[in-house]
Amino acid sequence: MSGKKVIVFLADGTEEMEFTITVDVLRRAQLDVTVVGVQLAHGTYAECSRKVKIVPDVLLEHEGQSWNRSDYEAAVIPGGAPGANTMKDNVEVQDIISLLYEKQKIVAFICAGTLVAKAAKIPEGHKVTSYPGVKDQLTDVYKYSEDRVVVDQNVITSRGPGTAMLFALTIVEQLLDKQVVEKLKQEMLTASTL
Amino acid sequence: MSGKKVIVFLADGTEEMEFTITVDVLRRAQLDVTVVGVQLAHGTYAECSRKVKIVPDVLLEHEGQSWNRSDYEAAVIPGGAPGANTMKDNVEVQDIISLLYEKQKIVAFICAGTLVAKAAKIPEGHKVTSYPGVKDQLTDVYKYSEDRVVVDQNVITSRGPGTAMLFALTIVEQLLDKQVVEKLKQEMLTASTL
Repeated sequence: MSGKKVIVFLADGTEEMEFTITVDVLRRAQLDVTVVGVQLAHGTYAECSRKVKIVPDVLLEHEGQSWNRSDYEAAVIPGGAPGANTMKDNVEVQDIISLLYEKQKIVAFICAGTLVAKAAKIPEGHKVTSYPGVKDQLTDVYKYSEDRVVVDQNVITSRGPGTAMLFALTIVEQLLDKQVVEKLKQEMLTASTL
Repeated sequence: MSGKKVIVFLADGTEEMEFTITVDVLRRAQLDVTVVGVQLAHGTYAECSRKVKIVPDVLLEHEGQSWNRSDYEAAVIPGGAPGANTMKDNVEVQDIISLLYEKQKIVAFICAGTLVAKAAKIPEGHKVTSYPGVKDQLTDVYKYSEDRVVVDQNVITSRGPGTAMLFALTIVEQLLDKQVVEKLKQEMLTASTL
């Protein structure tokens, strides 16, 4: 373990590829990932956008005051519009994203997840991307890019399921280094262009 | 819904990216996917290779005689060595794969999953691929390829997490058509080369 701790949020309607690829790749890189469930209707698992059912490691509601937010080096918001909307409207998720951003930790958003950056008041002027369908909700505040992944200081954003592998490897590169990324790409047999 | 029914097996130690990408992409294509859990230690969920916890739709053990095997147009075996080994040693999984193969339905294997083809006595001489680490267990029976995805009659095989998107889209193409695949690639923003 690198010892670096990362939160990945999970809600009903989260895009399960974006979620799973990120968690899997980060754990392959020996990062210490905690999957945090947000307002799950079924209590113990999230029903994702294509009905894959995933059990979080902890529930946000159960963490309460014991949650040591300053322990974390990064937080990740996957897409899937219903899941991202739940996270966007959750004050505690907003607070965690905002706090980590202020402490210059990494905050990473993919697909409709980038809407959470805006809700958490990540300052305007940042260069971001997102799923094309939510672009119009972001251009009033951010510089919009159509790159597959955008790294702007400590804000990482990406576009959709097909860019999730590149997104996850970019988070690994920012938290660790390029050598780990190269090793993972070999081990996972990724395509030459992502 | 196209009405075509597909089984995707899930066990403890299954590679969660390979599993989730396949289920998600097939469901985006309106295929009717059933996730079938095999011998899950925790009963209600599989603990996958990187500790993502996934709840199956049904448990193999509970299906018993009510399981109408001939309803299915395809069955998929994801990788992750411990999960693939559980499936390989499970007589009912072997029977389902063998029956669907005999009925000229699609049987699809990725990563260490290709070992299940051999255990299910998919006839020798087929051209297959797999995760490089299990190649030596397959070359005595099959023609081995290092292509990212191999389609040989009704047997589809692939290599690892980085080829899972191409694997899933190839299953869609074989069950439906190329137009659906092109639509999904656009919607998911996949890379130009997979």
